[in-house]
Amino acid sequence: MCSDSGHETTEPAAEQVADAGQPSPAAGKALIDELVLANHILFDNGVVDSFGHVSARHDVRPDRFLLARNMAPGSVTADDIIEFDLDAKPVNGRGRKVYLERFIHSEIYRARPDVVAVVHSHSHAIVPLGVVRDFSLRPLFHMAGFLGAGAPVFEIRDYGGNGTDLLTRNQQLGRALAAMFRQNSIVLMRGHGSTVVAETLQKAVYRAVYAEINARYQLQVSGLGAITYLTPEESEACVNSVEGQIQRPWDFWKQQAQERRRL
Amino acid sequence: MCSDSGHETTEPAAEQVADAGQPSPAAGKALIDELVLANHILFDNGVVDSFGHVSARHDVRPDRFLLARNMAPGSVTADDIIEFDLDAKPVNGRGRKVYLERFIHSEIYRARPDVVAVVHSHSHAIVPLGVVRDFSLRPLFHMAGFLGAGAPVFEIRDYGGNGTDLLTRNQQLGRALAAMFRQNSIVLMRGHGSTVVAETLQKAVYRAVYAEINARYQLQVSGLGAITYLTPEESEACVNSVEGQIQRPWDFWKQQAQERRRL
Amino acid sequence: MCSDSGHETTEPAAEQVADAGQPSPAAGKALIDELVLANHILFDNGVVDSFGHVSARHDVRPDRFLLARNMAPGSVTADDIIEFDLDAKPVNGRGRKVYLERFIHSEIYRARPDVVAVVHSHSHAIVPLGVVRDFSLRPLFHMAGFLGAGAPVFEIRDYGGNGTDLLTRNQQLGRALAAMFRQNSIVLMRGHGSTVVAETLQKAVYRAVYAEINARYQLQVSGLGAITYLTPEESEACVNSVEGQIQRPWDFWKQQAQERRRL
Amino acid sequence: MCSDSGHETTEPAAEQVADAGQPSPAAGKALIDELVLANHILFDNGVVDSFGHVSARHDVRPDRFLLARNMAPGSVTADDIIEFDLDAKPVNGRGRKVYLERFIHSEIYRARPDVVAVVHSHSHAIVPLGVVRDFSLRPLFHMAGFLGAGAPVFEIRDYGGNGTDLLTRNQQLGRALAAMFRQNSIVLMRGHGSTVVAETLQKAVYRAVYAEINARYQLQVSGLGAITYLTPEESEACVNSVEGQIQRPWDFWKQQAQERRRL
Repeated sequence: MCSDSGHETTEPAAEQVADAGQPSPAAGKALIDELVLANHILFDNGVVDSFGHVSARHDVRPDRFLLARNMAPGSVTADDIIEFDLDAKPVNGRGRKVYLERFIHSEIYRARPDVVAVVHSHSHAIVPLGVVRDFSLRPLFHMAGFLGAGAPVFEIRDYGGNGTDLLTRNQQLGRALAAMFRQNSIVLMRGHGSTVVAETLQKAVYRAVYAEINARYQLQVSGLGAITYLTPEESEACVNSVEGQIQRPWDFWKQQAQERRRL
Repeated sequence: MCSDSGHETTEPAAEQVADAGQPSPAAGKALIDELVLANHILFDNGVVDSFGHVSARHDVRPDRFLLARNMAPGSVTADDIIEFDLDAKPVNGRGRKVYLERFIHSEIYRARPDVVAVVHSHSHAIVPLGVVRDFSLRPLFHMAGFLGAGAPVFEIRDYGGNGTDLLTRNQQLGRALAAMFRQNSIVLMRGHGSTVVAETLQKAVYRAVYAEINARYQLQVSGLGAITYLTPEESEACVNSVEGQIQRPWDFWKQQAQERRRL
Repeated sequence: MCSDSGHETTEPAAEQVADAGQPSPAAGKALIDELVLANHILFDNGVVDSFGHVSARHDVRPDRFLLARNMAPGSVTADDIIEFDLDAKPVNGRGRKVYLERFIHSEIYRARPDVVAVVHSHSHAIVPLGVVRDFSLRPLFHMAGFLGAGAPVFEIRDYGGNGTDLLTRNQQLGRALAAMFRQNSIVLMRGHGSTVVAETLQKAVYRAVYAEINARYQLQVSGLGAITYLTPEESEACVNSVEGQIQRPWDFWKQQAQERRRL
Repeated sequence: MCSDSGHETTEPAAEQVADAGQPSPAAGKALIDELVLANHILFDNGVVDSFGHVSARHDVRPDRFLLARNMAPGSVTADDIIEFDLDAKPVNGRGRKVYLERFIHSEIYRARPDVVAVVHSHSHAIVPLGVVRDFSLRPLFHMAGFLGAGAPVFEIRDYGGNGTDLLTRNQQLGRALAAMFRQNSIVLMRGHGSTVVAETLQKAVYRAVYAEINARYQLQVSGLGAITYLTPEESEACVNSVEGQIQRPWDFWKQQAQERRRL
């Protein structure tokens, strides 16, 4: 818990990382296309800007995952997708710069075999909400039932001391963050943003969008009176019901993303 | 009032529902075109996003109504409009997925012969305002005089218990919601959104847009000092006056919707 | 001060008003073009939407003024500009619908020979700010120095009673509103919006834009601590200095308006 | 500290200023192109509108700097860039109007040899935040670590008295402002905006964008509870880490700026 403990691992934090291992049998084109689209949808919906990233577990080798090279999500193409192993080492990076925080993804995929997609972002209501002490992200409408399972705040000072750059830039910090995912599908990161997980890519995107909207609503009504949040039972019922409808926003977001990019 | 009472009816909640009855004499093309346009205008004005829906009573058979298939309103076309009976069963669905909450529409049309159009939405100021206890949507400017007749909050727990998914997904809940429309033309739905009715489609759209704007204003000024709301007499005078002007915004919204969709 | 006194004048409030008098020698094409542009700029900057209007005094006959027919400002063209006399009667309306509130313009032009342009709008920070009692629009940055001369609130109940539709729909109410312009160039209208005047059209547009921005700022910081507003001397110095720079925003707004409309 | 002391210098405040000295060997085309791009990026990100300006130190003659002529930043082209000396006199102005506040730039370049770029703006969260007494801009997320070195407020009344137009319109005021830059890279200007400096143009733009975002966050969460700001050590670590990543937003902003302008 001292300030340099955040750098104790031997993982390189540098952005250009030598390839390790052999590329897997190619990930399905459909998965790669969907991951590219997820990047665009998250940008179009204001969840990511020049920063933030989204990954998907490899559909052939579950000990690998796919993530864009170090670039703004809004312009990612299929050629920008790199395969990584669970040590967050690229296997087909060919020298391209990678995200410093790829350990968020690798350690969650290692710890949680059920997770298939991870979104890390600095969305504009989540960041401020996450720095208010004694304030929690809680579901106040049916689209955000998944928040009923909790939205704990990752305080990096507990793991890296008072002098980190807030980034989850090594295995140790990635492990600490990953350990905070239990029933919950989101962890807020104090002074930084959030990470969202799901068992499908579409659902991870959906949850990142609606966590942000719910956070905005909470900021708007704080101080106006007592708030009626969803009960645990309502939250669970909403997850079961509403998350069965996400093909609808996905189809629409896809259509908009393609029109904006003239595909 | 127990948590499973929300599912007591025999209405199927599933999205694919067998057609019932015979299609009516075709609804007027003008009505269908106007309903398509209403979908687009509501999207363009931020009242609906990937969710929310708008319906119109059939112009030949008043025991039928028109509503899009289960899809995002912003891309609805005439081919997506389905005719429903007052049991919320499609008559020409041909297996297409339908909205879970079509009972909002059917039960209002059944209970209120004067209502010709219904908008259900989750607009971004109405949702948070609706979860603040002891807080009411009240008209603070002339464009929202229709709020002077009241804007009660539908608490689904009173009808479906503490464990619903917040959705008005059957006849029983639809009836309960419909019963809350008396003089008022809007009902807020706690943790969910709102439903707006009117005797014309243009007016329902207009009211949905301006209810949202009025809600935003109320959120902005809460806590700043005492607010001067419209008197009941002012509200009524505003309805009589301003709602005679809605061809103006409608024409403009139509022009914008068509330009955006390059028609 | 009774509720029907608002209708005591013989002016017709109806929207279709017979032409009176003879058209003036044609207003300069440059003035008409600038008025059309002012409509577009006010729309593009969010000051007007489907409602609101802007007028200019006739450049040949100072007892006449120019104002669009009853339509949304964002699509006004030169053919939509109508000439009015100071009784708010169109002289070349040819049966086209006119704004109910044209008396705002006529009575200000009658009372204030120095005023050359009038903007009436319902902009989105001015409306809510105007309904908070004991709250004033005051200049907090250099672009809004003109607010230093005051921003009184027109309470229509003082002139039309508690049951008006909030609209300045006749000469009597127009006169009452016009009388509130002294040193100040803006009057807020409770539950309605505001009216802004200036000795040039460009300046009236500029002031309407920046009054709205200043109002937004005030709403944002209320309750955060004591605010440092401009001193009267600073306000005056800002008017003298900054309002000499308005060709710059005007040129830019013009360029944007033309690009958006592909001229 | 009297109100006219702000005009004591012999510098002309007028906008058309005679050229002084000889043009330098031409500034590099790359620098000019990057400065044009910086103008566009600042506009696209809402930091400047019709007002505000960005300059860069001349890459051949460090006693000169480059700044657009008096115009809106969003439409600046290479032909609009003028070279100035450290007395804020244009050397190749050829009679074109120049910014009244060019002294902000000249005096900072004179006082701080390490500074290579200066952004002056009136961005929409910085202005209101800056007028709240006893309120400071402080870093609450990792992208704004540079705020950890301080964000003092320039009170022009301390140098120009209670009757200025708030503008830094002469050498004396420019010197006073420049003297407030020590470790900090931003100075807020009460009732006006802010000025940001950096050792590269990209970094100055980055900081202006993220200072605005951090200010918006602070306005959103004030009053909601105790805020966890970055520690001084975290701020410093964030500067070292995150500001090594700014090529990523720059590349993306550049791509967007070019697409919007069809280059």
